[in-house]
Amino acid sequence: MPAAAKPSRRPPRVAATAQSMADKQREISISEFFTKNRHLLGFDSPAKALMTTIKEAVDNSLDACEEAGILPEVLVEIQPVGNGKRNGAEVEAILELEAEPEKLSRRKGAVAPVKEERYRVIVEDNGPGIVRQQVPRIFGKLLYGSKFHSLRQSRGQQGIGISAAGMYGQLTTGKPVVIVSRTAQQDRGHRFELMLDMKKNEPVVQKDEECDWERPHGTRVEIELTGSYKRGQHSVDVYLQQTAVANPHVRLVYRSPRGDEMIYPRAAAELPVAAHEIQPHPYGVELGMLLRMLKETKQRNLTGFLRHEFCRVGPKTADQILETAGLAPTKSPRHTDQDEVQRLMDAIAATKIPSPPTDCLSPIGEALVLAGLKQRLEAEFTTAVTRPPSVYRGNPFQVEVGLAYGGGLPADDLAQVLRFANRVPLLYQASACAIHKAVLTNNWRSYGLQQSRGALPSGPLVIFVHIASVWVPFTSESKEAVAHYPEIVKEIRLALQEAGRQLQIHIRRRVREREALKKQGYIQKYIPHIGDALRDMLHLDEGERTEIIATLTDTLERSRKI
Amino acid sequence: MPAAAKPSRRPPRVAATAQSMADKQREISISEFFTKNRHLLGFDSPAKALMTTIKEAVDNSLDACEEAGILPEVLVEIQPVGNGKRNGAEVEAILELEAEPEKLSRRKGAVAPVKEERYRVIVEDNGPGIVRQQVPRIFGKLLYGSKFHSLRQSRGQQGIGISAAGMYGQLTTGKPVVIVSRTAQQDRGHRFELMLDMKKNEPVVQKDEECDWERPHGTRVEIELTGSYKRGQHSVDVYLQQTAVANPHVRLVYRSPRGDEMIYPRAAAELPVAAHEIQPHPYGVELGMLLRMLKETKQRNLTGFLRHEFCRVGPKTADQILETAGLAPTKSPRHTDQDEVQRLMDAIAATKIPSPPTDCLSPIGEALVLAGLKQRLEAEFTTAVTRPPSVYRGNPFQVEVGLAYGGGLPADDLAQVLRFANRVPLLYQASACAIHKAVLTNNWRSYGLQQSRGALPSGPLVIFVHIASVWVPFTSESKEAVAHYPEIVKEIRLALQEAGRQLQIHIRRRVREREALKKQGYIQKYIPHIGDALRDMLHLDEGERTEIIATLTDTLERSRKI
Repeated sequence: MPAAAKPSRRPPRVAATAQSMADKQREISISEFFTKNRHLLGFDSPAKALMTTIKEAVDNSLDACEEAGILPEVLVEIQPVGNGKRNGAEVEAILELEAEPEKLSRRKGAVAPVKEERYRVIVEDNGPGIVRQQVPRIFGKLLYGSKFHSLRQSRGQQGIGISAAGMYGQLTTGKPVVIVSRTAQQDRGHRFELMLDMKKNEPVVQKDEECDWERPHGTRVEIELTGSYKRGQHSVDVYLQQTAVANPHVRLVYRSPRGDEMIYPRAAAELPVAAHEIQPHPYGVELGMLLRMLKETKQRNLTGFLRHEFCRVGPKTADQILETAGLAPTKSPRHTDQDEVQRLMDAIAATKIPSPPTDCLSPIGEALVLAGLKQRLEAEFTTAVTRPPSVYRGNPFQVEVGLAYGGGLPADDLAQVLRFANRVPLLYQASACAIHKAVLTNNWRSYGLQQSRGALPSGPLVIFVHIASVWVPFTSESKEAVAHYPEIVKEIRLALQEAGRQLQIHIRRRVREREALKKQGYIQKYIPHIGDALRDMLHLDEGERTEIIATLTDTLERSRKI
Repeated sequence: MPAAAKPSRRPPRVAATAQSMADKQREISISEFFTKNRHLLGFDSPAKALMTTIKEAVDNSLDACEEAGILPEVLVEIQPVGNGKRNGAEVEAILELEAEPEKLSRRKGAVAPVKEERYRVIVEDNGPGIVRQQVPRIFGKLLYGSKFHSLRQSRGQQGIGISAAGMYGQLTTGKPVVIVSRTAQQDRGHRFELMLDMKKNEPVVQKDEECDWERPHGTRVEIELTGSYKRGQHSVDVYLQQTAVANPHVRLVYRSPRGDEMIYPRAAAELPVAAHEIQPHPYGVELGMLLRMLKETKQRNLTGFLRHEFCRVGPKTADQILETAGLAPTKSPRHTDQDEVQRLMDAIAATKIPSPPTDCLSPIGEALVLAGLKQRLEAEFTTAVTRPPSVYRGNPFQVEVGLAYGGGLPADDLAQVLRFANRVPLLYQASACAIHKAVLTNNWRSYGLQQSRGALPSGPLVIFVHIASVWVPFTSESKEAVAHYPEIVKEIRLALQEAGRQLQIHIRRRVREREALKKQGYIQKYIPHIGDALRDMLHLDEGERTEIIATLTDTLERSRKI
């Protein structure tokens, strides 16, 4: 490699040619891509990296437990590691220092690396465990997993998260990921130490051994990484708190780097209703995808293909589609040409097909949303709405909204928006999110709240929004914000409006009550004077005066009630 | 494949086991991943898909021309294609219909596919052309390109864009991408028709032939796709307009689907200063990356490694680093163990190394930013600021800001923010962008503007922000918004403040002038009366009265000027 040019002046332009440009063309490995674009995965700052690592591991634990029908018990532990292990007191000191950032001096020019904090993140569950052969690829290969190809609500969906966390750990500390796992079929556990080959995107097994483990089944992941433990709105603490709210069936133990232990007990004794896998819906399929499905199907004829590769297509619907397309039901899927596929597409679009089944979804439900809000917030009014399922690009999804208002909530701030997707709290990138957009563009003034143009409503209000889907379209791989599909924004807005109308009734009633009270106060103040005046004018005695005052007060009370 | 379950009630939970879950684990191809996550690439709606396709192709054309030192001439053409080709008048009719969306009826339940619009997008340039062997992979393979591994400001950087556009075209229309290219060395052009194998992420060449082409060198891409041609803020028209503003050296011809032709002539006769490739800066390298570089280097010893694989490391600095780390300069890079690498990391952090060279950047410059704003907007005041280069994660970057205020700009709206990254206009996802955040969190009231909490400032203001970097950290692969790296947000804010102070001076002066004018008006109104009063009191004649009025008016004028 030639020496780096270190010019003090800009050298003359050296024009590239087609040939010199061709020489620089190279394949980019997926791991290299995400290393450079780590913010896409949620690793752009040490604080976020710690949060994301825990989130990805907890997501996997909960998904695995639920899929196996096990009530989840999850342990999250963050151990400070360092040149001379940092103890709880030192972590406290760092936290205090960070609260006053001016105490932290950095060299000018933004080039000096600050001394790093290191943590070991441990997430352990009582799930079904992982079959030995699968461990290396699940934890050591990006784009590998079981949920990507399955249409069903789950927290993970991309096959990236946990491997990316391991990759980030390796990148910042050079340490392998440690996995201990045991399935119900095994007598002992197995323990892996894994690295990731960044060029090939393949796992490198450094250790693979049997080990004793007290759990009958479950998985434990340990990742050492450069991170930053912070408190506040975007912290691990808040994430786990909100996870407990949206997942009342989980028992969660959290050992923070400060050295304390926090236990979130189980608030619901049952698992949420199971989400079932569905086939794709014909309306969500595009030409290119249809071409590929026709090529790959094991079905021998077009009727079979339509009936068994899609949901909601019975024999009648299949016949109708094929008749409209002018294609023989017995025709082989593999031998359809492009023109025929286009006719099939048009015929699907022209045929009435019921919406996809929605048992692939598992919403939280209005009752549990309400309970969660009431438990966490001291509001004077709460309401919740679960919308019926809807569809975007063939994917079923469902929106839930909860509102908490008044009481002990801060009255002078902008409303707080709590965002959830498939029961996972979303803490970052609020303003990029379809949920935020829907809240922003809703007219909150009509409910009696204040709202500046282009801003969130202000007042003592917390807005809870949950979107459940077989495929939540996130704006990036880090799954922090929901993309602006118009169907999704519309459903969120409808849910907000439905809940908003309840809020409006409450606020109006409160305003009316306040006004009535004010009026009553006025009149009450004057009634004794009226009594005195009447006594003087009509020469009444003290008893009659008291009676008149009582009658007037009574009339006032009754008129107010009407 | 089993028949799809279509239950009317939710079936009982079938618990998965570790084994049944293992059976479903699969590798996910990068093309499958992006097909499902197409919104990450900017293809979530037909309108955006059309925009993104043109943007990716134009980015490539401009990059190639500039790299080859050619003044770019780019043709962009959007041809309506259809069942019975749609003509200009029909496109106009669609546009009108879309302006009144209630005219468009959709079936309830969001499941009915709407009749699609199809377009052929053509982008042609006078660039250096592409060497024949490279064409298939550049246009038919995701994550392949020349810019990813090179630290230099360019529009493209990921090796995804144009292949993704072709993939989207193929997915929605089943049609191949057509490429015609000719290099200066070739007598004739060559013409390709390409498809993308979605499972393997590899190009499939359908046609590869020589052809006649009148251009001496250049490239032409044709992609047929389902899209939607719209006008307004996010339109292709606006994108091309803004591209012309940020790239005054480009001659752009645009044939819209309406059938008209728009020519943006060249406003600057010279190419921007060339951006030079640099080596990575030691402060931007992490442990994992350093480990890998040590393994892959061709250098035989650590001194050579430090000097030739990084920028800003001369013999002295290299010696100093190695001494601090306690490593022999002659040691082989390949034989350093993890502990030694950690010491090397710490030594780098402890050594003072100059900031990376900044000739890898090519900002627009204050003069051209000002010229662009003045040409496009009828403002009464404009100002521009180009900040000195700064560094995030070892990557040099530079921020430019322009402000236009008053005059013909709409006074009642929120300010308009024009965002650019490496000279490319960013039209979507404004609220996800670090630029937006910096504008939002800046205190515009102190400059005399109105601003609600959590909202953009309001008033007759246009804010132009350009960030130039060797690696712009976008929030997603579609490159629509800049990620919130603190160093970047800080630099944008500093630039806004610098420009804001200029604006403040202008607004204050205007307010003062207005008040003085008001005062002057008052006094002017009373001067004749004072004259009359003095005449009556002092028994002056008409001449003396006129003289007094003139003196008073003159005094007033002079006092106002002070």
